[in-house]
Amino acid sequence: MPANRQWLLDNRPQGEAEASNFKLVTTQTPALADGQVLVRHHYLSLDPYMRGRMSDAKSYAQPQPLGEVMIGGTVGEVVESRHPKFAAGDKVVGMGGWQEFSVVDANQPGALRKVDTTHVPLSHYLGAVGMPGVTAWYGLVKIIEPKAGDTVTVSAAAGAVGSAYGALAKARGCRVVGIAGGKDKCDYVVKELGFDACIDYKLHKDAGSLSKALKEACPKGIDGHFENVGGMVLDAVLSRMNAHGRIAVCGMIAGYDGQPVPMTYPQLILTNRLKVQGFIVSEHMEVWPEALQELGALVGSGKLRPRESVAQGIEAAPEAFLGLLRGKNFGKQLVKLV
Amino acid sequence: MPANRQWLLDNRPQGEAEASNFKLVTTQTPALADGQVLVRHHYLSLDPYMRGRMSDAKSYAQPQPLGEVMIGGTVGEVVESRHPKFAAGDKVVGMGGWQEFSVVDANQPGALRKVDTTHVPLSHYLGAVGMPGVTAWYGLVKIIEPKAGDTVTVSAAAGAVGSAYGALAKARGCRVVGIAGGKDKCDYVVKELGFDACIDYKLHKDAGSLSKALKEACPKGIDGHFENVGGMVLDAVLSRMNAHGRIAVCGMIAGYDGQPVPMTYPQLILTNRLKVQGFIVSEHMEVWPEALQELGALVGSGKLRPRESVAQGIEAAPEAFLGLLRGKNFGKQLVKLV
Repeated sequence: MPANRQWLLDNRPQGEAEASNFKLVTTQTPALADGQVLVRHHYLSLDPYMRGRMSDAKSYAQPQPLGEVMIGGTVGEVVESRHPKFAAGDKVVGMGGWQEFSVVDANQPGALRKVDTTHVPLSHYLGAVGMPGVTAWYGLVKIIEPKAGDTVTVSAAAGAVGSAYGALAKARGCRVVGIAGGKDKCDYVVKELGFDACIDYKLHKDAGSLSKALKEACPKGIDGHFENVGGMVLDAVLSRMNAHGRIAVCGMIAGYDGQPVPMTYPQLILTNRLKVQGFIVSEHMEVWPEALQELGALVGSGKLRPRESVAQGIEAAPEAFLGLLRGKNFGKQLVKLV
Repeated sequence: MPANRQWLLDNRPQGEAEASNFKLVTTQTPALADGQVLVRHHYLSLDPYMRGRMSDAKSYAQPQPLGEVMIGGTVGEVVESRHPKFAAGDKVVGMGGWQEFSVVDANQPGALRKVDTTHVPLSHYLGAVGMPGVTAWYGLVKIIEPKAGDTVTVSAAAGAVGSAYGALAKARGCRVVGIAGGKDKCDYVVKELGFDACIDYKLHKDAGSLSKALKEACPKGIDGHFENVGGMVLDAVLSRMNAHGRIAVCGMIAGYDGQPVPMTYPQLILTNRLKVQGFIVSEHMEVWPEALQELGALVGSGKLRPRESVAQGIEAAPEAFLGLLRGKNFGKQLVKLV
């Protein structure tokens, strides 16, 4: 049985998350029981939701237990199988966690899914053709419900969710405007991802200034917005929403460190008759097949070319994760484990 | 032609609305042209939305023009008619404004509606079987969409919207909890309106304290909330919403004086996957017939016995309106003009 390096959650953050919240240990992978599969992880996905799990505040999910392997999506290859539907060499997607190997009970529905890497690189199943892509799809298609000609916006536009959102919205005939941090990301969002415009929020010291930039980029106002960030960005977008606008709330990264970030003008929800709706994609498994089909086609046809930020080796996971929380990644943040 | 006393908006409020914002004038009602109807108003409705119209801030409606008769719903009796569908003596509902008479172009769709006062007193067409009732109906039925057994809440529970909401929610098998100001109102909400409980927000100095009271009154959490107030009440309710809860936002009275009242924990929209939706009932005329039918039946059968606060005489309108903004009314606020 191979040695397996694992990151455990050792203690909960007081304020900002820190590398010392995690602890690296090495164990031996256990022998397989009937129905189990041993997977060697090729990539680990790092995502903002993990910060929420590190706290024990009330949330939609149970907190990550202390002393256990950090939760996380993984893609990899089956090394050994005692389940009839999986064989060594199969490429699979699962929730293997922050470790190099996982032993999966393959009888559990949805625990392990075989994927085809003919047209879609394996790592993309953690991004554009995985949870982040479906997240963008759900928020856009099921909450924002855009019509052709609508103006739609998204924060963290250069990220895994934002890039998929842009391609999905363009395919529906929308004007798509991104919000991202820094000139490089904004250039990428417009030139490579094909957004109509992108606003660098770092050039704006407050919501009022950002709101003016949004007015220029969205001369007809905003009909739909996908919120990955919260705080100042959400305040500014709210001020530019058209009547009957829809806001899909997927992330409030600015509030993860326990500091509440108020919404300054909630009365705009009333005056503009807005719908503001939070969601988590794992509660909507019924849409995954339809969403993954569209996302796979967009990637296969080159209309969606997601960028990846790849950290090397299991040791690098905590620092890469902290960088993600600070917006240092550029595209989908992964850790390569092979 | 009779003399007609009218309240004009004379100047816009700086901060709180004041009696000096209005000006009383007397004019002669003009001779009727073809298609016009002269109505003598029996009751004028006073409603929180009027405060919004007094400002010229961007909103869903045009601001009330200065120097013109204040907007407002009225019920009354036709005095003279040059329209074939109306005759002297007809009881009618319209938007006659803050004045004793109005001349209505009866060809304009929806400008004037005949009503039957056999089972429903005329004044109720401004309340439970009028705009406030339909407002409660729309928020509950179309946004909150409650199931039997759900716990639903409403702020300003003793008011015209709140009382209708309670009857509509009880008819759907919900546990209904009100929030109101003062022991008298709370007693009325429970004993006369039939709510399961009512919380006196004046006993609570902050959202945390109010949240604890909500926990006691709503042991299974809150599935749906109808917001008439905003501010501390909304903050407290948000902290008790169940996953997938729905909040219909109808009023933000606390913010009308131009002071923004922030929402302290918007991240709860995400963590509890809430839908928060603003609406104004006049944009949903398609539901009025269905809603009015149910509301009329509830009043006719005695299941909804709305209370009215009646000020006497057109002179009393501004003070009654300012009292409404400060929560001094008890039930639907009217001005009796005959």
